[in-house]
Amino acid sequence: MWGKREDMIVHETDPYNAEAPRAALAGRMLTPVEAFYSRNHGPIPLIDPQAWRLTVGGLVTRPLELSLEDLKSRYPARTLTATLQCAGNRRAGLVQVRDIPGEDPWGPGAISTARWTGISLASVLESAGVRPGAAHVAFGAPDVSQIADPPQPFGGSISLGKALAGEVMLAWEMNGQPLPAAHGAPVRVVVPGYIGARSVKWVERMTVQDQPSGNYFQAIAYRLLPADADPKSAGPGDGFSLSVVAVNADILQPDGHGILRAGPTEVTGYAYAGDDRGIARVDVSADGGRNWQQAALDGQAGPWAWRHWRAVIDLPAGDTEITARAWDTAASVQPESPEHVWNPKGYANNSWARLRVTAR
Amino acid sequence: MWGKREDMIVHETDPYNAEAPRAALAGRMLTPVEAFYSRNHGPIPLIDPQAWRLTVGGLVTRPLELSLEDLKSRYPARTLTATLQCAGNRRAGLVQVRDIPGEDPWGPGAISTARWTGISLASVLESAGVRPGAAHVAFGAPDVSQIADPPQPFGGSISLGKALAGEVMLAWEMNGQPLPAAHGAPVRVVVPGYIGARSVKWVERMTVQDQPSGNYFQAIAYRLLPADADPKSAGPGDGFSLSVVAVNADILQPDGHGILRAGPTEVTGYAYAGDDRGIARVDVSADGGRNWQQAALDGQAGPWAWRHWRAVIDLPAGDTEITARAWDTAASVQPESPEHVWNPKGYANNSWARLRVTAR
Repeated sequence: MWGKREDMIVHETDPYNAEAPRAALAGRMLTPVEAFYSRNHGPIPLIDPQAWRLTVGGLVTRPLELSLEDLKSRYPARTLTATLQCAGNRRAGLVQVRDIPGEDPWGPGAISTARWTGISLASVLESAGVRPGAAHVAFGAPDVSQIADPPQPFGGSISLGKALAGEVMLAWEMNGQPLPAAHGAPVRVVVPGYIGARSVKWVERMTVQDQPSGNYFQAIAYRLLPADADPKSAGPGDGFSLSVVAVNADILQPDGHGILRAGPTEVTGYAYAGDDRGIARVDVSADGGRNWQQAALDGQAGPWAWRHWRAVIDLPAGDTEITARAWDTAASVQPESPEHVWNPKGYANNSWARLRVTAR
Repeated sequence: MWGKREDMIVHETDPYNAEAPRAALAGRMLTPVEAFYSRNHGPIPLIDPQAWRLTVGGLVTRPLELSLEDLKSRYPARTLTATLQCAGNRRAGLVQVRDIPGEDPWGPGAISTARWTGISLASVLESAGVRPGAAHVAFGAPDVSQIADPPQPFGGSISLGKALAGEVMLAWEMNGQPLPAAHGAPVRVVVPGYIGARSVKWVERMTVQDQPSGNYFQAIAYRLLPADADPKSAGPGDGFSLSVVAVNADILQPDGHGILRAGPTEVTGYAYAGDDRGIARVDVSADGGRNWQQAALDGQAGPWAWRHWRAVIDLPAGDTEITARAWDTAASVQPESPEHVWNPKGYANNSWARLRVTAR
């Protein structure tokens, strides 16, 4: 039975950063809470749900201070299935091109999907009344990160347009259970379609403002720098901010371990595109992309969730690199080579999925 | 002075299909009407603006029949700058990989930008009243295409969600002049962010319905087929429908003609991404992508318009392939190779821009 923390691939213990191995994600439309990737920038805060408050301020007509009970009683509850993907998902593929010091070499497991229960962020903003000039909603949390320069609590922001779109949530449950501490208890933001960093955990402040958050993790980190930039000297405004997730996919089964039997072999995996894009097609190749076959797409748990896919390839004896790539509904396809998406912080690797296997 | 039809690269005269050469698009945020690409599937209809009517039917509470005067007097006028890109733009790059019979080898000029004046499609739909079950808006035109099987007037559809987004227009002017016949006079649809085929010219019927248009150009053509499919036997539902445009870019200057002088050389071009994505960065390389430099982005004519860009490279003597690629605001980057986006109808080539030049 899957579920023990020991089963996770732990990149760091302090802060705790861990992803599930491929096999734990394979074939599961919803990721078990215990296998849901955990990306933290500081110590995990333990918050008394009774004492927790959310303040809503900035460019609003009615500043609010809301308890968890207020969220549950004043606004209509909703449940939405959404995938979250860390900006560093699949960084390991970039590290193979060139070293990326100071960043964890996430494999393909820094992406997970849950059913989130909570309320729509839009309903809170409506009750607070957004004032003219508002353009962004900033979130603040209590977890102080020593990674930040200077050290500061984690934060980030999204555009007001996204914040008012119905899909952005303040959630207190995942997969029908109260959020565990590592996933943001008692309440976290869930921003479907965006990099996970915007889904701020343990949220306690919302500020409606005319510009993006000045927090380190919005203004300096989670920005895509050109390949020749020095990340140590990067300042606000260098590179461009990451928000919406580009089309991506990886292989979950086989998982690269052990010796396979040559012959017909089922290959499965996930594909995902942010925004309101869907997955249009997934191709699988056993010869490095010279010949592709189309994978079958599994059912979808809603417009904000990944798609699992499966194909049966004829696996030759010996060493083979299995390749997969997804197309989204805008006909965006994953780029071929990690070399050409390499960037100094190792974000947003959406190059073709590649998995070496051995069969006999 | 640019402007004569003879200056266009004419792929076909019947139906008339033509694009401007690179130099005519370079450095111009708005494309002169005479240089705006013209993609037609049948003879260009000549319509008396006084006699023209638009019928609005299907799943509406109040079917409408509107004259041009009705459009102008009943709904608020608006002007929007929007880029249109043909799904076949840059097909020539795919033809170099493998022949694509029966389709014109468009260069990088099947994309153009104009200021469109008209009304918002949403306002017409609101006045007609959309009934429950509505999910798509189909457009019909009078130009009978012999390319279609069976021959039929051109048509297409967009989702109701897109149709109700403010940016979709019924336009009667481009760049301050009444639409010429070749661009849809008296009234055309303009669907910013989507392939040009959805911006139906000479529109005379709008039908609100529960499914996409069954028109040949929606159900069979303008769908992305896998590389090994036979387009002659493609039927409804094969491949996937093209709508939103993926990030794309090409080089406009130099234009590949003549002998350049080695040394510092300005390279300019366009970049574009559909949906509400913007262009985040453009990279230019003179060594096949081993080293990139960032281009400067020119000002933008609004969220639905392309971005022009410019960079100065150090051009060596001899033959050089200049390469460019754009990243959109979701960190989607153009894929490297035309080989890997090749498809039997030659749509949606958004692989890196590549231009061979000679200098001494």
